Amino acid sequence: MKRFSLNSATTKGWPLPELVAGCAAAGVTGVGLWREEVQEYGVRRAAALVGDAGLTVTSLCRGGFFQQDGWLDDNRRAIDEAAALGAPALVLVSGGLPPGSRDVDAARAHVGDALGALVPHALDAGVQLAVEPLHPMFCSDRCVVATLGQALDLAEPYPAAAVGVVVDTYHVWWDDAVWAQIARAGAAGRIACFQVADWVTPLPAGVLLGRGLPGAGCVELRRFREAVDAAGYAGPVEVEVFDAALWERPGADVLAEALAGYLTHVA
Amino acid sequence: MKRFSLNSATTKGWPLPELVAGCAAAGVTGVGLWREEVQEYGVRRAAALVGDAGLTVTSLCRGGFFQQDGWLDDNRRAIDEAAALGAPALVLVSGGLPPGSRDVDAARAHVGDALGALVPHALDAGVQLAVEPLHPMFCSDRCVVATLGQALDLAEPYPAAAVGVVVDTYHVWWDDAVWAQIARAGAAGRIACFQVADWVTPLPAGVLLGRGLPGAGCVELRRFREAVDAAGYAGPVEVEVFDAALWERPGADVLAEALAGYLTHVA
Repeated sequence: MKRFSLNSATTKGWPLPELVAGCAAAGVTGVGLWREEVQEYGVRRAAALVGDAGLTVTSLCRGGFFQQDGWLDDNRRAIDEAAALGAPALVLVSGGLPPGSRDVDAARAHVGDALGALVPHALDAGVQLAVEPLHPMFCSDRCVVATLGQALDLAEPYPAAAVGVVVDTYHVWWDDAVWAQIARAGAAGRIACFQVADWVTPLPAGVLLGRGLPGAGCVELRRFREAVDAAGYAGPVEVEVFDAALWERPGADVLAEALAGYLTHVA
Repeated sequence: MKRFSLNSATTKGWPLPELVAGCAAAGVTGVGLWREEVQEYGVRRAAALVGDAGLTVTSLCRGGFFQQDGWLDDNRRAIDEAAALGAPALVLVSGGLPPGSRDVDAARAHVGDALGALVPHALDAGVQLAVEPLHPMFCSDRCVVATLGQALDLAEPYPAAAVGVVVDTYHVWWDDAVWAQIARAGAAGRIACFQVADWVTPLPAGVLLGRGLPGAGCVELRRFREAVDAAGYAGPVEVEVFDAALWERPGADVLAEALAGYLTHVA
């Protein structure tokens, strides 16, 4: 229970003050936040709101999208926002192929260069960049980093304090190499964030919003939690589920269901 | 041009006699066929139709789905059908998780056992079983074999004459390990079939029918063709595109477009 963290994407549309109050009322002590909602509310004000309720920010989502104009300044700002919130990790979704490009090798090499450019600022700020491998179905348009092994290869040139990885069960469950890569990530001190969502089919059009709360799908969630634990990770477990149907429901109900699913299928 | 083969899934709904006549008229010498249409037309009658037109059957799709009742007998029949058509390879889509199961390791182990059970019959018939890794987005409900490396691991215990793999650009393009695995597959004589389709987003609901003709998407198709060639493969190049919009169009038009895309982006 005390490792559970609610990523606010699960209850999108629940206003930040209500989300914070709802988490506190439910005994939840961690939240993963998104930049848009934090910026809208005000970064310092959000930090105070969360801190006054006795919560900690377990991660800030998200930086990355390194193929877009202005990526360097935008990611530096994201690091600053994470630091202001006291979030230990900034989740990075690295972006897909540039428009018209077929050169996935070049796009991946650019991610490595972008990480290098951000490392000094991340170290100064005390924020670990968390490279998130996304499911390969997002490779062309959202994230060219498609496996945990690839994320670790990209992180490897840099200190672990500066560059880690996200282990998100939704994105990596299909990969038979993932268990060895989790062990590798843990040994290197690079598990920056552990996120949980379940795999559900059929996938909806656009494939972004078809995830399931823990227990709704086919992923061996507890096996993943045990694997990150065995690799030395003792941090929060964020439930992060993108599901448009959940966003229609009261935030407190979704939180209660996420928590129940976590306790039954993950903890 | 002479390596081009039309997989009939690209022009689904084009009746077999018209497809065969259309291919012959276009100078196409190879077709990949599906069991349903062959059974409906009659296996011997289909073999005669294709042979009389001077075409060869480059593969038969598909066996597999090893978690379904009756899989053993059904796959033996599929091998016999491939042999009757003179198809060198039977494409296997191995099936997803059994209903209610989360045990992907067990499902994968069962694929290996199923291959072993089919090997003697495949050798007798002179048909190479072609294990097809499908894109990881199909892992739960269609094919637990998600990478080329995994397909080769499953094939490895058996003679190459009995068990090979399919390299389908649509399914493996995102995988940074694929180039090494293509070399491995070629060195072992296990490239049973090379299929080409392009990756297009956004994906449609269900994600099955959103593929693109060669050149419509972001895959480095020529690089794949050169890689299988460099690995020693000199067989047909099947254009196999599942796209519901193509099925609304006249088969001959789709064939012409597939051929043009192949010549421009693959050959």
